[in-house]
Amino acid sequence: MARITPLSGFPEWLPHQRLAEQALVHAVQDVFELHGFVPIETRAVEPLDQLLRKGETDKEIYLLRRLQADADDNNDAGLGLHFDLTVPFARYVLENAGRLEFPLRRYQIQKVWRGERPQEGRYREFLQADIDVVDRESLPFHYEVELPLVMAEALSRLPIPPVRIQLNNRKVPEGFYRGLGIDDVTTVLRTIDKLAKVGQREVHRLLVAQGLSDGQADACLELATIQAEDTAFVEAVKRLGSSHPLLEEGLDELARVVDAGREHAPGLFVVDLSVARGLDYYTGTVYETQLVGHEELGSICSGGRYDALATDGETSYPGVGVSLGVTRLVGRLFGQNLLEVTRKVPTCVLVALADEGSRAASGGVARRLRERGIAAQVAPEPAKYGKQIRFADRRGIPFVWFPNPEGDEVRDIRSGEQVPADAGSWQPPAEDLRPRLVASSTQP
Amino acid sequence: MARITPLSGFPEWLPHQRLAEQALVHAVQDVFELHGFVPIETRAVEPLDQLLRKGETDKEIYLLRRLQADADDNNDAGLGLHFDLTVPFARYVLENAGRLEFPLRRYQIQKVWRGERPQEGRYREFLQADIDVVDRESLPFHYEVELPLVMAEALSRLPIPPVRIQLNNRKVPEGFYRGLGIDDVTTVLRTIDKLAKVGQREVHRLLVAQGLSDGQADACLELATIQAEDTAFVEAVKRLGSSHPLLEEGLDELARVVDAGREHAPGLFVVDLSVARGLDYYTGTVYETQLVGHEELGSICSGGRYDALATDGETSYPGVGVSLGVTRLVGRLFGQNLLEVTRKVPTCVLVALADEGSRAASGGVARRLRERGIAAQVAPEPAKYGKQIRFADRRGIPFVWFPNPEGDEVRDIRSGEQVPADAGSWQPPAEDLRPRLVASSTQP
Repeated sequence: MARITPLSGFPEWLPHQRLAEQALVHAVQDVFELHGFVPIETRAVEPLDQLLRKGETDKEIYLLRRLQADADDNNDAGLGLHFDLTVPFARYVLENAGRLEFPLRRYQIQKVWRGERPQEGRYREFLQADIDVVDRESLPFHYEVELPLVMAEALSRLPIPPVRIQLNNRKVPEGFYRGLGIDDVTTVLRTIDKLAKVGQREVHRLLVAQGLSDGQADACLELATIQAEDTAFVEAVKRLGSSHPLLEEGLDELARVVDAGREHAPGLFVVDLSVARGLDYYTGTVYETQLVGHEELGSICSGGRYDALATDGETSYPGVGVSLGVTRLVGRLFGQNLLEVTRKVPTCVLVALADEGSRAASGGVARRLRERGIAAQVAPEPAKYGKQIRFADRRGIPFVWFPNPEGDEVRDIRSGEQVPADAGSWQPPAEDLRPRLVASSTQP
Repeated sequence: MARITPLSGFPEWLPHQRLAEQALVHAVQDVFELHGFVPIETRAVEPLDQLLRKGETDKEIYLLRRLQADADDNNDAGLGLHFDLTVPFARYVLENAGRLEFPLRRYQIQKVWRGERPQEGRYREFLQADIDVVDRESLPFHYEVELPLVMAEALSRLPIPPVRIQLNNRKVPEGFYRGLGIDDVTTVLRTIDKLAKVGQREVHRLLVAQGLSDGQADACLELATIQAEDTAFVEAVKRLGSSHPLLEEGLDELARVVDAGREHAPGLFVVDLSVARGLDYYTGTVYETQLVGHEELGSICSGGRYDALATDGETSYPGVGVSLGVTRLVGRLFGQNLLEVTRKVPTCVLVALADEGSRAASGGVARRLRERGIAAQVAPEPAKYGKQIRFADRRGIPFVWFPNPEGDEVRDIRSGEQVPADAGSWQPPAEDLRPRLVASSTQP
């Protein structure tokens, strides 16, 4: 057999890491459900014409073909793996519109695939957790306030560094530009989006080359420097002298979102008018999310409002959504030893085995523990008790149970304390019942 | 946009069905963890040479290629989607052997893909839930007793029809054939596997054509007719007159499994010596599982023992595993309206909205309910209360909450009973807290 090596860009975790990732996903999912979001799952593949609707991603798609396909039988030839969960969700909404209740609050936690060149932080397969609200024809603004708060609440439950959600609103730059007499809003937005990459001088040069005056270019660059944790940004924008009804509307909406964020947790929301990613297709608020202290990781959670998430030509379905990059987040935290579970296996109790003839008796103890929700397994073989204890220790199993006709005993192998116990009533401390997700104690 | 139609073989569920599928998966997963199985997840793709190790499935593989691949840059060309979870698990064990604790008890719940021609009950994408125990060099027999019992326990917790696990053991037919002087065991096994398809006469003809005597062929066919819910099969086999140490060993092992099953639940395990699928690569006990009353669906849960799940040429890793076909199971139950959740959304309480200015107050009620684990959402708009109640009713949300400065009230919209309530202390009945998986009450 050929030597087995990892595939670059396709991350896999060791069992205790997957236990941690899964605990994280369950915690996030629990918050989504507490807020009334329903789960959906879409197939991994979409017809290529669906996938190509977002032009800029066409380089990243994996197409399928059947190994044994012949000319007249390859009706899978036009299928590709989805590269996000938004395109499949939009298709799902159209396909099932008559059977869905609107407004639809849905979450979706699935793998996505992108044929990226492998490089640091670029995955070819990764897990995303999306929430969206979508309605028919119109969608009230208040969901643009609610959605980032739901995601922030989910993240706040995790033992991870705090997050900062950066806000912008398509209406602010668009209204601002229009107020300055600039018509080609999309081109200016795309140029401003290059700020971090090419710098102020170059962006200024590009804007002027695109037909803006020096003053217009200066104002556009000034706008992108504005940041605030409260509504102070409104006055800062107004001082730049542009005026337009759409600008007023955008400033008002942004102010409402940042105010709601401040009630939730000070410093959680930051208006940052340099955030321009996706402003060419989002139509209202946009979100990006920094993990504090890990800003160079990029946004772990992005989204926004789109007035036409989906449309069948007659009906349009506006939506607002936020997408958490689970793999990006846990990949970073695992890589820096910042996140772990309290033990490597679900097992709380290892039931010792005196000899092979006692397997049924030890199994009975384990069964009675499980009946009360305590994860238990029997030792694999009747080795010396010291070896059985080491078996538990290597996996972080906290308790070893010794069945005995004269009275069972259970040992906490961390303290060495051993006490009489009955499998029908003994309870471990609550914090030992299940492996728990914790910030790593072994961080460097 | 092109008309959107479902893709044959790629099932998708409506949100309430996904809620049911997810509840089923969580219940199964919970049992796996109570038994100390750790979760792993493998990437969706494997190198083609790994996938082709099981020769018989080569027609069903989906290969990947990047849409924009060029000649010198398509290093994904040799990748295909996995068609089961065993091949990736075997590769994972070899790749991570030095970092895993053996014996490794793992579960894995993931989608798999097969490029099948679409037809009734054949899926191109489906969800599997596998448990396996794998060890280094040798694996004790007792896991062959334990694994089907774990799966049976998981299935017994679900509101689905009962299951019957059919057992055979490779050593029984192999020892039996060898005792008759038949050497080409694999060819005979594969011929016997055609029984259901081509019938006794044709199998007899084939066996004789393969060089067996009339008497040998008769005996092989007789063996395959033996069924028993207890150890009576041992005598039935012995009456057929073959004798071989391997046969003795196989009969003893089968007897131990069926005995253990009887202790668990009478009728759960059935020895059925016609079960031959996979006997060419399994080396000990094999399992198939019928959903009682839905036998024509085929096995919903299959597996067995393989002495070389994985091998790197020096070390071999024997394993025993069982795989539950989640999509096959829920697809059947959804199709016949036999399984549902008690409501269509996770929401337990809809908080009514008197007017848009009360959104913060209603949101505060919802937050206090959620803080105590009660899923709550605010009505989307301040419609008439009758309309808000209908909003809840359509989704099966059992309670509507009416905030009121003079004292909140909550209404059970099923009974119409409305009582004073405090968001900091009110509790719904336990059965209303979360949507629960139930056998459908609307079955035809």
